[in-house]
Order: sequence, then structure tokens, then C-alpha cells
Amino acid sequence: MTSKAKDPKPRPTRNDAQRQSILEAASRLFIEKGFGGTNINDIADAVGSTRTALYYYFPSKETMLEALTEEVTEKASALAQSVSGRDELPADEALRLLIRQHAGLILSHPVQFRVVERSESSLPEPHRSAAQNARRALLNHFVRVIQRGIDGGQFRRGANARIAAFSIIGMCNWSAWWFDAGGEMPADTVADTIVDFGLRMLLPESPRRARASGIEDAVGQMREALTVFEAQLKTSPKR
Amino acid sequence: MTSKAKDPKPRPTRNDAQRQSILEAASRLFIEKGFGGTNINDIADAVGSTRTALYYYFPSKETMLEALTEEVTEKASALAQSVSGRDELPADEALRLLIRQHAGLILSHPVQFRVVERSESSLPEPHRSAAQNARRALLNHFVRVIQRGIDGGQFRRGANARIAAFSIIGMCNWSAWWFDAGGEMPADTVADTIVDFGLRMLLPESPRRARASGIEDAVGQMREALTVFEAQLKTSPKR
Repeated sequence: MTSKAKDPKPRPTRNDAQRQSILEAASRLFIEKGFGGTNINDIADAVGSTRTALYYYFPSKETMLEALTEEVTEKASALAQSVSGRDELPADEALRLLIRQHAGLILSHPVQFRVVERSESSLPEPHRSAAQNARRALLNHFVRVIQRGIDGGQFRRGANARIAAFSIIGMCNWSAWWFDAGGEMPADTVADTIVDFGLRMLLPESPRRARASGIEDAVGQMREALTVFEAQLKTSPKR
Repeated sequence: MTSKAKDPKPRPTRNDAQRQSILEAASRLFIEKGFGGTNINDIADAVGSTRTALYYYFPSKETMLEALTEEVTEKASALAQSVSGRDELPADEALRLLIRQHAGLILSHPVQFRVVERSESSLPEPHRSAAQNARRALLNHFVRVIQRGIDGGQFRRGANARIAAFSIIGMCNWSAWWFDAGGEMPADTVADTIVDFGLRMLLPESPRRARASGIEDAVGQMREALTVFEAQLKTSPKR
């Protein structure tokens, strides 16, 4: 479950690794100098390669941006789709997975995510529409799972599924602006914390599970109640 | 309290209104064409003014960006500062205010916020450093209030104040990407919902208030427990 969120690849070949390092260098330059302000030579210099060698992988800056959009925006919607259709999963479990996957994706591609967000207007059609559709699909997968949880009683009645979906996705996406891969908080810890926050936003005041769990809980509840009575008796003046 | 979050101005003069409409037109163009791709003539055309008239308000594109940064980034940190120092406020009340103000600011300046985020590398010094400091200060105000709540028991022990602050600020900031001022959800509803989500992320499982509220609650708890016993007795086979 956890490892899925990290999108493991089956052992990269030399070519994959080179392609990846080109995309990483391009992302950093697009952020620093803007998409318009970066040229192919800058990217070749940054990866210690030649312009010609670069063309083998990417015929233009635009194709790099397309590849980045596939890696982030389209990947995000594909990951979410793989969960939102699984109606056999309890809604809270499905939401847990959705958040874990999305946070994991952003935390492993923060610079790429910011490039894609920032440079969408430079993305040629039909890739631009594809990216917009993917973003809309991601939102809909979240809304669908959250609404299922509200209707089924796992999540609070009256919660707004749409604002919740936007807020949870926003909490994940914003990590691209602050997460420091070399910092003291590991990505896994951050992702788990975001999952926890996202679920707490929606779980009912007293979760159903607790209420339905029978005799043992009931005994605990009575004991707690008796403690309150006892405390009250002690503090009540002259009785 | 609520009205404060909207940052009411004391009745704009004609000049303020013109200045504001220049900044709004500039923001939209910076988003569409990029900061580098927009020139003063485009902005003058968009507000139906002349280049010369524009110079009366802003001598350059950079000064517009400076003004936008003041309106959003520096304003955000000033608003937060006005709350985070008020130690007489219970931490949950202080956090409620912090989120309400920040969400209100972003929801009333979504395009401006995106411009500022996107164009920071075009911002001349010392404004660039000032913006970075303001963002850091905003974070610290949130962390301070959340940590006070954790230490004081209003918020869950073990919650990570820093990730919580980033997540709540992210949830607010991301609304700049999705909120539609002309849409069916009013900004106030969205802001209130975000406040509610932010607090739920941090409140303890059974809020202290409920636990401490005495006899009446204890009776309710015992009654609930008895219902569970009763149900169990009914379903237990052959007793």
C-alpha cells in the first residue's frame, strides 16, 4: 500500500536515468529562469551533455514540458482512478489511499509539480487540454470517494465533499512549495501526517467504529462516567 | 471578527479605485502572458487608459509587482502577527482567527496571489527578500499558535505543529487556484469550511470541553452504555 504510493519503476535503464536527469535539470532551470527564459543550451550545460545528445531524448523544450505534465498531472489522475472505482473498499480506506498516493507523488516531484503548474500556458495543445482534463478527473475521484463516505456514514453528514476534495488536494499540492527533500522530515512522515489530517477533517465527532464496538467500550464509558460522579461528589460543598 | 478578516478599507477614493483596477488588469495579464511577456501598453489597453496615465500610479511593471506583493504576502504576515501575539486568546480561538483571516485574504485576491507566487523571481531586491521574510513570518505565527495549543492541551498531543501549519496555510493558498468568485459557493462559506477543517485536524479525539462538562454528560454516557448492554443482551443467543 505504502510502496505503491512511491511509484516504483522496474529498475531504470541507462536511458531512463539520463532522460530523468535531463527532466530534473530542465525543471530547476524553468523554475529559476522561467520557461521562456531557458534555452536548450542551458539545459545541455546543466546535465553536462551536448545539444545534439539532448535532442535524442527531447526534440524541444515543449516536449520536456509535455513529459513533465505526464509524470505529474496525468500520473496523479491515473493513480486516483485506480482507487476511486474500488467500491468494495470502505470510503475511509479509499480516501486514505488516495491521499497517500497523491501526497507521495507530489513529495517525490516537488520541482516538477511547480514547473507544470507555472508553465501550463506554454504547453502546446492537445497536451494543455489533456492536463486540464487530468486535473478535473483527479478532483472528481476525490469528490466521489468523499461523497460515498458521507452518504455511507463513515464521514460527517453535512460535510461539503467538493470543498473537502479541493482542500485535501491543496494540502498535498502545497507541499511542493515547502517540502525539502534533503531536510530533517522524511517524505514518508510528511505523507502520513497529511493522510491523518485529511481523514480527521472528515471523520465524525465520535467515529462509528467506537460507538458500535460493544460491551467492552460500554464498560469503559460507564467507568469514565463514574469517575465524573466521584469527582463531583468530592468537590460538592456540604452534602 | 468575521468582518475584520475581509480587510475593509475606509471607502476608496477615485484614485484608490483606479490604482486597484490597474493592479487587477496587470494580475490577469501576468497570469495569461507571464510577467516577462506583458508590457505596459497591454496593461494600459486593458484598463482603457494611456501609458502616461498609468505612469502616474506605477513607474514600471516591477512597481506593480511590488504593490501586489505588499497587498498579499506582506499583508498576510501582518494580519497573522496581529493574532499570534495575543496570548490571552485560547489557542483554538487564535487559530480560528488566523485561518479565517488568511483564507479571507486569499479568497479575495486569488489572481494576485498566483501572480505573486509565480513572479517572485522577477521581483527586485529588497522587495524579494521582504516577501521571503513575510512568508517565513506567516509560517512562524501559525506554528507558534498551534504549538501553544498542543502544549496547553487544546490540540492533540503529538501533532506536528510545523506540518500542521504548512498544511493549513497550503489549504488556504491553494484556494487561489480553484476558487471562482463568480461561482455558486460564496467566499464566506468556503472560508468558514476551511476554518472548520483546519481545527478538526488538530482537536483531540474527545475534545476536553466535552470530557470536563460534568454530571449531565456522565449521565448521558451511562445511558448510552446501558443501550449497548441492552442490545447485546437481546442479540446474545440462549442465555
